[in-house]
Amino acid sequence: MRIDIITVVPDLLKSPFEASIMQRSIAKGLVDVQFHNLRDYTSDNYKTIDDYQFGGGAGMVMMIEPIDKCITQLKSERDYDEVIYMTPDGETLNQGMANTMSLKENIIILCGHYKGVDQRVRDHFITKEISVGDYVLSGGELGALILCDAVIRLIPGVLGNETSALTDSFQDGLLAPPIYTRPAEYKGWKVPELLTSGNFPKIEAWREEQAYERTKERRPDLLED
Amino acid sequence: MRIDIITVVPDLLKSPFEASIMQRSIAKGLVDVQFHNLRDYTSDNYKTIDDYQFGGGAGMVMMIEPIDKCITQLKSERDYDEVIYMTPDGETLNQGMANTMSLKENIIILCGHYKGVDQRVRDHFITKEISVGDYVLSGGELGALILCDAVIRLIPGVLGNETSALTDSFQDGLLAPPIYTRPAEYKGWKVPELLTSGNFPKIEAWREEQAYERTKERRPDLLED
Repeated sequence: MRIDIITVVPDLLKSPFEASIMQRSIAKGLVDVQFHNLRDYTSDNYKTIDDYQFGGGAGMVMMIEPIDKCITQLKSERDYDEVIYMTPDGETLNQGMANTMSLKENIIILCGHYKGVDQRVRDHFITKEISVGDYVLSGGELGALILCDAVIRLIPGVLGNETSALTDSFQDGLLAPPIYTRPAEYKGWKVPELLTSGNFPKIEAWREEQAYERTKERRPDLLED
Repeated sequence: MRIDIITVVPDLLKSPFEASIMQRSIAKGLVDVQFHNLRDYTSDNYKTIDDYQFGGGAGMVMMIEPIDKCITQLKSERDYDEVIYMTPDGETLNQGMANTMSLKENIIILCGHYKGVDQRVRDHFITKEISVGDYVLSGGELGALILCDAVIRLIPGVLGNETSALTDSFQDGLLAPPIYTRPAEYKGWKVPELLTSGNFPKIEAWREEQAYERTKERRPDLLED
């Protein structure tokens, strides 16, 4: 899978790709992630990528021309399955979307910054708009990181133990049950006795029940679908 | 505001705090963000922070002792308003929560990694569990970054133009209207004529209508509350 990220602050994106699972997936050659600095696609000496809003109002708007140039250049090099724009008014990311996205071959992720991009970019170049949640961020970069991480960890071979991802929250429509590790007692706080009993069928049944109870208590909306 | 982030991969968190708005807020002294490496709070030579699940199953669990030591050390130095655990089964972050959180003085953010933390950590040390959305990530670090960014940009003095945050999506319960910048025509694609008319009362009315229409089309759930 190849992911091209278009941004005005490529430096911001660096460290999460140099650590943990995203770093390992790149090192293993399972994913290729490339950053593209929008300022490299400007045509004036000041490398202008934003300008004031038509009609007035606070906040700068990212101009269409550098974005057009960057996307057009990338598309001339290979075919893309999606050109994604990270924006709070996009479709809200969920595990099902991450699953689908992990099957794609090449995607472009455009990060908005400041007030966002000129609407004409969205009308003519973007095939999918994604939000990571109902809150506003300084830019689309952190959203792009979230999308990359959620998707990359699902690519076969990325996680050491394949079954680990399948028992995560949401994969079966339920939240995950409580988990415990050693010591069995810490400052008087004990783990549930059953978990140290070795009775695996009963442990499995307890986990299913706990997952259901936790979902009912915390996220009854997940049980309605 | 002071934010203490507890993590097993502090390097992952670096670059987003060294760029853009989070970097400027720290440089201006409006926020103090400190990373704490959990491995510095272990007591064995291998700096062990995780172990197998009681009852069997894929994925490692973060142990209670290093987390206890780290949180206890921090609490001995100052009072904290919240000890937050980032987890997909926590309360889903929204703009209202970010607004509330931006008024806090000192918070701790604990990032889960691997399969998550021992349930006893959640029962005895955590005051608030937050999820950034209905998807699973490699760890709580990216969630912590999202929370920090959403909160920090609301602290007075962080954004250059205070009114910019107020016209964002969600702040008035509506998505933001379309925005445009120069050129007024690009490859035959024109900006709506009204926006270049200088008729500001009409522009304001158009924006309100567009925000409402976009919300109705994309996120009718936001209009129900």
